This record gives sequence, structure tokens and C-alpha cells, in this order.
Amino acid sequence: MERVPVLKIGDILLVSIQIDMEDQVALQLQEDLADRIVATGCHGVIIDISALDIVDSFVGRTLATIASISRVLDAETVVVGMRPAVAITLVELGLSLPGIRTALNVELGMELLARHRAEEFTDLDELGDEDEADTPAAAAS
Amino acid sequence: MERVPVLKIGDILLVSIQIDMEDQVALQLQEDLADRIVATGCHGVIIDISALDIVDSFVGRTLATIASISRVLDAETVVVGMRPAVAITLVELGLSLPGIRTALNVELGMELLARHRAEEFTDLDELGDEDEADTPAAAAS
Repeated sequence: MERVPVLKIGDILLVSIQIDMEDQVALQLQEDLADRIVATGCHGVIIDISALDIVDSFVGRTLATIASISRVLDAETVVVGMRPAVAITLVELGLSLPGIRTALNVELGMELLARHRAEEFTDLDELGDEDEADTPAAAAS
Repeated sequence: MERVPVLKIGDILLVSIQIDMEDQVALQLQEDLADRIVATGCHGVIIDISALDIVDSFVGRTLATIASISRVLDAETVVVGMRPAVAITLVELGLSLPGIRTALNVELGMELLARHRAEEFTDLDELGDEDEADTPAAAAS
């Protein structure tokens, strides 16, 4: 079975989708990505779709699922490299990829993630950092 | 026709090969990459082959050609992500990828390129007098 590689670059995981997103490929990618986020502690995921001629509802759903999985693992997802024709078709199909951030290319995606991360820390600083309570509840018995 | 995307990340062009390297795909990739090197002025090319199960003589030759084209355009090429089984098969086939630098993953490839670039500039500045002065203690003289 074909598999989409997940590349680690600094604090970001990069996925370049070039093959057809069949069910098994999509599931495998979700699993691989979740594993890598946990293993590396990365806070950003960039999915490059510049090789895709078509983004149908299945691919759209897959991207949304990946973004949701990443979010619960404390990583933001940005989809980059969408072709103009793909954007037009998506909207014509009534798919506007809700909940998915986009950027024009990998570099802009990285900037977006860095900015998002910086904002998050600013918010934390303003609140005053006090929640480092990592001790599992079970240990307190 | 399928096409392998070329992603720009800082001073580096990243290519992740996931599809079968047929003649046309290989030629197109060489052309795209040469165009992008000239257009962006990047000095490094990283080719990720972690998705490839097999690297035959054609793929090996394609990688060597890409490395040569890049070199005459003042960019270094590093092939990263080779699977252990691929390495074993390559050597058994008598292909040792002469003239191609390798690294285990994208990050190590980036480090290699950065080091190579730094050395180049050092060579330009002063003609080599720091062979083994890598120890931090050396600064305490």
C-alpha cells in the first residue's frame, strides 16, 4: 500500500500529498500523523496539496479530520499550495473547508503557524502561567 | 501527467518523491527543479525518498542527474530518508550512488547543507586554519 510520508522540519510536520487519497491511504495518514505529533511534540502540521488537481468531498473531509485530530493533540494544521482551479471547484461544489486554515505556500504556512504560536504564548503570559499540574490523578491516591 | 512538487523552505528546495519515476516524470522534475533553483536562488536541494520501496538504476541515475544539474546551478543536493532495505538492495545491485550526498532525514539534510554552505564561505574568507578546533574548551585560551 502506498503511504504519504510525514517529514519533520523543526517544530513542524510537513505532509505533501501527491497520491490519490483512497480510504486506506487517508486512514493510514491520519494514524501516522497522530503518532508523529505525539512522538515529536510538534505544534504545527503543514499539508501541501499543490500536486492535487482535484479536491473532492472525501479529500476535504480527510483534511478536516486531520485538522481536528491535530488540534486535540495541541497542533495547528495549515493546508498550503491549493491551485486556483481547485479553490474554484471547491466553492462550486459547496465545500469551503470549514475549520481549515490555508496559506499560499509552505513558507507562508510556517509563518502563520509561528505567529499563531507566538499569540498563544502571549495569551498565556497575560493569564499568568500557573497550570503546570501534570501529575496524574491516579498518583494522588 | 503526474508531477512532483518542489517546495521552497527558506534557502532550500524540498522534493518528496512518492510516485513512480517514469521517464516523463523524471524529466519534468529535473526541469522544474532547475527552473526553481534559478528563480529562487536557493543553494540547497533536499530529495526525500522515504516513500520509495525500490530505488532502481533509473531512479539512481535520475538522482545523480539532478545532483549534477543543481551543482552547476550552485546548489548542493542531499538525498534523505532512504529506507534500510533500499540501501541494502542498492549496494547488492552494485549501485552506490556516486556523487550523491545522503542524510537520514530532512533535518539532518538541512544541517548538512548549512554546514557545507558555512564551510564554503569560510574557505572564501580565510584559507583554512581551523581543522579540529570544535571543542568549546578551545575558546577558553
